[in-house]
Amino acid sequence: MTPRDHGDPGDAPSTPAPLRPPTHSTRPSAAEQARTIAASTNAATLATVTADGDPWASFVTYGLLGGQPVLCVSNLAEHGRNLAGDPRASLSIVAVGNGGDLLDSSRITLAGVVFEPSSVERDAARTAYIDAVPAGRIFADFSDFTFWVLDVQRVRWVGGYGRMDSATGEDYAAAAPDPVTPNAAGAITHLNADHADALAAMARAFGGYPDTDTAVCTGIDRYGLDIQVHTPRGIAYTRIGFPERLNSAGQLRSVTAELARAAAAAGNP
Amino acid sequence: MTPRDHGDPGDAPSTPAPLRPPTHSTRPSAAEQARTIAASTNAATLATVTADGDPWASFVTYGLLGGQPVLCVSNLAEHGRNLAGDPRASLSIVAVGNGGDLLDSSRITLAGVVFEPSSVERDAARTAYIDAVPAGRIFADFSDFTFWVLDVQRVRWVGGYGRMDSATGEDYAAAAPDPVTPNAAGAITHLNADHADALAAMARAFGGYPDTDTAVCTGIDRYGLDIQVHTPRGIAYTRIGFPERLNSAGQLRSVTAELARAAAAAGNP
Repeated sequence: MTPRDHGDPGDAPSTPAPLRPPTHSTRPSAAEQARTIAASTNAATLATVTADGDPWASFVTYGLLGGQPVLCVSNLAEHGRNLAGDPRASLSIVAVGNGGDLLDSSRITLAGVVFEPSSVERDAARTAYIDAVPAGRIFADFSDFTFWVLDVQRVRWVGGYGRMDSATGEDYAAAAPDPVTPNAAGAITHLNADHADALAAMARAFGGYPDTDTAVCTGIDRYGLDIQVHTPRGIAYTRIGFPERLNSAGQLRSVTAELARAAAAAGNP
Repeated sequence: MTPRDHGDPGDAPSTPAPLRPPTHSTRPSAAEQARTIAASTNAATLATVTADGDPWASFVTYGLLGGQPVLCVSNLAEHGRNLAGDPRASLSIVAVGNGGDLLDSSRITLAGVVFEPSSVERDAARTAYIDAVPAGRIFADFSDFTFWVLDVQRVRWVGGYGRMDSATGEDYAAAAPDPVTPNAAGAITHLNADHADALAAMARAFGGYPDTDTAVCTGIDRYGLDIQVHTPRGIAYTRIGFPERLNSAGQLRSVTAELARAAAAAGNP
């Protein structure tokens, strides 16, 4: 992630630095974030080019074959004609479930080239699409509808204000969607409501902010917790990382309980 | 609106035809629908072209100056660089508040060319953007952000399954957003919950379906009510039109009450 200079006019609040490095600060890669966002919904906006080379934005639904988006569009529609004439395409997907400030929402752009799946692939593509878009059953086999698979060659991820990165098509293909994030909302609510003291202790012990007064969990992924800490020096954002990457949502409860125990022990030596 | 042949495989349910023409069947034009949808939200997807002519889809927020979308994007972002290099742009907007089946949602594509507003216009563009996106106050004046206004030259409206039409930039500019639709949700709920008999009577008297058993209101605009009618011949969709176009949401109660009285009178001659 490259720091970016917005020419800050100077009145933005400053953020206190950590007093030591967080114990585990790994975050999901841009490719992982992109796979997770792509798997979070079935609606996107497609960009294609007209015969004149003009950009054309249109609403589409999609399924996923691995991480490759499967579209099912009418050849009578403008985007269908565009794809038939020029296979270059790009898909913008906004993560479902951000709520609040839209500009702080996570979103991705997947760019590449569409192709029509061969006969064997077509069955898999059809299944992927219908699984994601059950209403597709009604029109997928109409004679004017074509399945297109987007071969993703370039990925751009924007995680909200100032958090952004790129990934290659290879990285995107090799990454897996996060198994924890889709089920995190309930756990975040529970941690903040019932375990605020434990969060603050974890932030002090492992988050790099030993001067934490209070801490709020704002996100969970397979690598750890996103934490907002309130300190006498101001508000900052950090991570409480898990010792190892989680492979299922079921591991979340035991790993956070273990971190809470370890943080309590660290605070009472 | 052109009927389109999807090569129906033959097992789709058929829809009973009206037994006489609806009394007032005017619907909003594509240009009016587009202005209403554009005014319903502040989030869209922008399509631009890269230096290589590749399409690039990206999430943006926007305000409206008249009907022209105002964007505020960073020159450091890919879409900002694209617009600086090639002003051709297209914006896809999905109507807020459809719920349910995404493929049945109303959406538009606005296509045209962006321009940087002159100094006087820039104040108006800035105000329009900040009114729609209050968080824009934080970054709009950063040195790397530019306001762009989309001069809309071509409009495509898709109202859901099989309802679609195009409009020119001139039609779009001359149309006005619907004053009734944004506040219709409560009225729809009220009509269906408390006035189902009146809706059925109106559908029999004015909707072209004198054999209506029950009727459900599915939408309201300045020209009338969208109605689903259940008849012994099957389910159909029709209109209960207002005698005159409404100019404010405040007129809705009296015009529907008057239609209900007239329908009751027609049913008891």
